Amino acid sequence: MGTTLAPPPLNPPERLLMGPGPSNPDPRVLEAMTKNPVGHLDPYFVDLMDETMGALRNVYRTTNHHTIPISGTGSAGLETILVNLLEAGDSAVVGVNGYFGNRLAELARRTGADVRVIEAAPGEIADPAEYEKLLADRPAKLVAFVHVETTTGACQPIAPIVESAKRHGALVMADCVTSLAGIPLDIDALGLDAAGSCTQKGLGAPAGLGPITVGPRAMEAVANRKTKPATWYFDLSLLFQYWGGDGATKKRAFHHTAPIQSIYGIHEALRLVLEEGLDARWARHQAAHEQLVTGLEGMGLAMFTPAANQCATINVVGVPDGVDELRVRNRLLSMGVEMGGGLGVLAGKVWRVGTMGYNAQPARVEKFLGALDEAIVEERKVFESYEGRR
Amino acid sequence: MGTTLAPPPLNPPERLLMGPGPSNPDPRVLEAMTKNPVGHLDPYFVDLMDETMGALRNVYRTTNHHTIPISGTGSAGLETILVNLLEAGDSAVVGVNGYFGNRLAELARRTGADVRVIEAAPGEIADPAEYEKLLADRPAKLVAFVHVETTTGACQPIAPIVESAKRHGALVMADCVTSLAGIPLDIDALGLDAAGSCTQKGLGAPAGLGPITVGPRAMEAVANRKTKPATWYFDLSLLFQYWGGDGATKKRAFHHTAPIQSIYGIHEALRLVLEEGLDARWARHQAAHEQLVTGLEGMGLAMFTPAANQCATINVVGVPDGVDELRVRNRLLSMGVEMGGGLGVLAGKVWRVGTMGYNAQPARVEKFLGALDEAIVEERKVFESYEGRR
Repeated sequence: MGTTLAPPPLNPPERLLMGPGPSNPDPRVLEAMTKNPVGHLDPYFVDLMDETMGALRNVYRTTNHHTIPISGTGSAGLETILVNLLEAGDSAVVGVNGYFGNRLAELARRTGADVRVIEAAPGEIADPAEYEKLLADRPAKLVAFVHVETTTGACQPIAPIVESAKRHGALVMADCVTSLAGIPLDIDALGLDAAGSCTQKGLGAPAGLGPITVGPRAMEAVANRKTKPATWYFDLSLLFQYWGGDGATKKRAFHHTAPIQSIYGIHEALRLVLEEGLDARWARHQAAHEQLVTGLEGMGLAMFTPAANQCATINVVGVPDGVDELRVRNRLLSMGVEMGGGLGVLAGKVWRVGTMGYNAQPARVEKFLGALDEAIVEERKVFESYEGRR
Repeated sequence: MGTTLAPPPLNPPERLLMGPGPSNPDPRVLEAMTKNPVGHLDPYFVDLMDETMGALRNVYRTTNHHTIPISGTGSAGLETILVNLLEAGDSAVVGVNGYFGNRLAELARRTGADVRVIEAAPGEIADPAEYEKLLADRPAKLVAFVHVETTTGACQPIAPIVESAKRHGALVMADCVTSLAGIPLDIDALGLDAAGSCTQKGLGAPAGLGPITVGPRAMEAVANRKTKPATWYFDLSLLFQYWGGDGATKKRAFHHTAPIQSIYGIHEALRLVLEEGLDARWARHQAAHEQLVTGLEGMGLAMFTPAANQCATINVVGVPDGVDELRVRNRLLSMGVEMGGGLGVLAGKVWRVGTMGYNAQPARVEKFLGALDEAIVEERKVFESYEGRR
């Protein structure tokens, strides 16, 4: 009886993952995830937790003690920050210029906080003066925004927002899901109080952890909450009883069972980033982005995101006339290459191409460009023959 | 500069993980996690999601459509159930006979619900009459309890609690973290409305996912909530826009990026369980448990959990006189073998030995017994020489 209930064996196809993420993990990271499993309170693992925190601090360029991978995906890390920093009665200002800004606002609203949004059109960035105006009008406990809006490709400059927030006594956090380890980011120099990212983009690991950093001003706000967070799993105070509250002791109190093999993975991914060096890694991403844009424009395509707002990790390009966008993506996928479609108001209008982590390499970008060119040429034939028959 | 900031390479020691979990994953599961990465909306992955849900239903012995692995650890799955089934103003009754019962009560309290607890002493189980009494006194929306209390080894019979809950119109959920795929569990035959488990015990995978099942009565309660859950990440209504709300369509709306490689892992783990067959797997766990208890008693140790409450997955045994319990565990670990200590009131008094998943094999149990015997003998010598010097 048993056998007939079992699903067939895994047999995933080989893919070049050039969508908005997941990108292909570095093979060294996948290999690391198969290393000898140990217990979550094993002295070896406790040391590894400290190493992982240290490496993550170096990648975030911060001295924040409270820097850990949350045991969930990137979204879980962002939720962790918001549910700990906000509670009912608090006020927040959230920048929204796409799907992920809206999501940040929704995460904030779920805490019961009063949320005011600053909107910008797709592809555009928010005017820092708008933050200044809103905060001058009425203070907020927290300002939150998306560094790189993955649905539009727009990169929001961080410094002016932090400046406004600090001037008005607000904490400030950034969604760095599509920026960490891909484009310049320096938490301490920028003065960000908290940031969250993912593992499956610039870091070059599989999805599954939400690396966050939380600074001392933010942890003070956590300590001064009137109520416990509505979540136990993401409660920072409890999490740091396991990850080491003060960084001075090896004593660890059980919270949840850490995903050991995933921590092995991010440890190896962080090691790869720091071996390469952040400056070199950012330059590699920038070169891959430029190679891609040059290639796309050479094929007659036009970038959707204004040049001034573009960034090296995610490239949003207009769908050309004369093809069915979904058919092009499906043909590309049948060639073993994935790219992303548009989300929300951009559905059907744009493609999204990631040049991130392990995939930010000349040969991989070249392979992508060649495949896309072929897919478009073939689909144009289909489209023309269809138009001809009308 | 980069290189000096990088942590040293991973080099985890080989361990026989006979603590309360994680247990050693099946090597086939680790290997599966390195298979070709695909995107989270790839048609291959959408099919794999359906297969994973189907296999998980078979392992839970349920027809509940809403049966998925939550993208967090076992605790995340339990929190998902509670934050969706309860909201402020609701009433819950929670059974507490150890650390994990207390945790379930705390998870429930975080939702703002009024929580009444039914307590039993460590090693004991709750008297079903107590549930009957409390529910007759005042109805509750939800009854929650722990199937196998990992800190005490006590197995709570499910059927009488479900009977009381149904009689009084309450939903009923069980924490099956230390029971799924290790001891008999049949969600539909028992009439449970929801259950959550983990991956690192009976299922034989690494920690990192929280497999849950939620029945139609419970999903109706979710649909009838007055407020949105305080969490976005664990919001079941949103999660099933991605996992397939009605099971009839392949259409998937993005929620968060699924941890692809972890899903590969649980898919393979579920396949292994169903290939073996649940009945055979339960029998294998029972045999490993009996072999262990016979061995421990042969060494002169006494089980902490009364025989009537013992179960096949977790074995809680008293620390014998004449040894320092922590030194024994550390000596065992230096021999490459992990077991657990006591938690809370049982700290220093008991050891916890898991016979779960891949480790529920005669040779592995035998290796553990031999190592423990040696560690105790050696530590008795140390203890005696110390006592002699006093």
